[in-house]
Amino acid sequence: MNCNVPTDICFSFTGFCARGGRTDDHCDGWGIAFFEGSGCRLLLDEKSAVVSPVAELVRQYPIHSTHVISHIRKATQGRVALENCHPFQRELWGRYWVFAHNGDLKDLPKTQGFYQSVGDTDSEQAFCTILERLRQAFPDEKPVLTALYPILQDITTQLATYGVFNYLLSDGEHFFVHCSTLLSYVVREAPFCQAHLVDQDVTVDFQELTKIQDRVAIIATVPLTDNEDWTPIPPHQLMVFQDGEPQPMPIC
Amino acid sequence: MNCNVPTDICFSFTGFCARGGRTDDHCDGWGIAFFEGSGCRLLLDEKSAVVSPVAELVRQYPIHSTHVISHIRKATQGRVALENCHPFQRELWGRYWVFAHNGDLKDLPKTQGFYQSVGDTDSEQAFCTILERLRQAFPDEKPVLTALYPILQDITTQLATYGVFNYLLSDGEHFFVHCSTLLSYVVREAPFCQAHLVDQDVTVDFQELTKIQDRVAIIATVPLTDNEDWTPIPPHQLMVFQDGEPQPMPIC
Repeated sequence: MNCNVPTDICFSFTGFCARGGRTDDHCDGWGIAFFEGSGCRLLLDEKSAVVSPVAELVRQYPIHSTHVISHIRKATQGRVALENCHPFQRELWGRYWVFAHNGDLKDLPKTQGFYQSVGDTDSEQAFCTILERLRQAFPDEKPVLTALYPILQDITTQLATYGVFNYLLSDGEHFFVHCSTLLSYVVREAPFCQAHLVDQDVTVDFQELTKIQDRVAIIATVPLTDNEDWTPIPPHQLMVFQDGEPQPMPIC
Repeated sequence: MNCNVPTDICFSFTGFCARGGRTDDHCDGWGIAFFEGSGCRLLLDEKSAVVSPVAELVRQYPIHSTHVISHIRKATQGRVALENCHPFQRELWGRYWVFAHNGDLKDLPKTQGFYQSVGDTDSEQAFCTILERLRQAFPDEKPVLTALYPILQDITTQLATYGVFNYLLSDGEHFFVHCSTLLSYVVREAPFCQAHLVDQDVTVDFQELTKIQDRVAIIATVPLTDNEDWTPIPPHQLMVFQDGEPQPMPIC
């Protein structure tokens, strides 16, 4: 989720969570990261999202954030363990970066550098590789988006040669979304409507909960609601969201 | 808390939390880190521990861990914000490191290196300095304790010249405790007894909850119980706990 004002994710998370063992089989752990200014709140659990007490907290307690990344895990590489739950977090340029991956990268070479994996997933390794390359390209500070984007695009293209590489990546300012095979998004803005979850019979009327200037983008592997206009992201596209909407792509 | 078997911290945390606004005035946020193998669960909140819904979760939900670091903040440097809540976390040598500080370091110089502060506390800056120096001394992997200890001792002594520097530092294997002015510990082991909190009228009988081989060390600024034998740590001492007990000090 990416928004122009801090928003709670209780509604979307309720539907998303159900896929962690009830309506889908991604039950090998889960996690969620909320940026609040430059701070980041990262909650992880190796239990499935449908039974995790921490997930229950997130469903009940409206944490407001502009950048949220959540993941429910179906283990392909790496055992079911806390250290293998996404999102992963590292610091680069005095900012926290958070990363979640859907896919499977085979025989990814290990980076020899600053960032090392703690767990044993291809995903964390890919994240370390991304940060390593960004740091090499810009050793001192975060560059402007037009400079950062082509480097990230380049690393992403290289990593995607190892397999399926749908990912979400954010530092609380920009929100990067790479579609390798399957990702869709919806932008909610005025005039707000009702939305009904796919995974649970829950409806919310956003008109009652929003102000006219609010804008919220939700990006998910598979649409979370069945009565909104989700846009599939074309494969191999790296998008950037800011303030709840897709940004024009810098030309590479 | 450092233990030889994964243990929940519900009892100690109940008393500790009360100091976050009820029995003491450390009400500018709080945090807790639980190591579970090489994974780490870090919960932070800029609300006071006595009202935080996340703290309520920790009081109620028995998370089992061998290495736990918790902190309640009284802001000296840095505003009340999520990014300034302790413990702080970074990765070094493919391990998560977690750090919490009680004290105040004045005019600490910024490191020019890999680790940069996200928030604006002296504490996070000191943590970055520690990790930077450890990485410089051992670029590739974690050394044995006898090699690591004198370097950490040296950095600690240097940082302590800037002010009060009580800290807890762990990577889920070793548990380092530096007393600058005020820290005490208690080791709970068989034969287990009852313990009664200082900050709330709560008693627990550890004999009912433990096995004979269990051993748990609790380290706190001020003792958490009023009927146990807490040992004050002498100022300027850097201790190492493992498996719930203080380790013999490597000779520096």
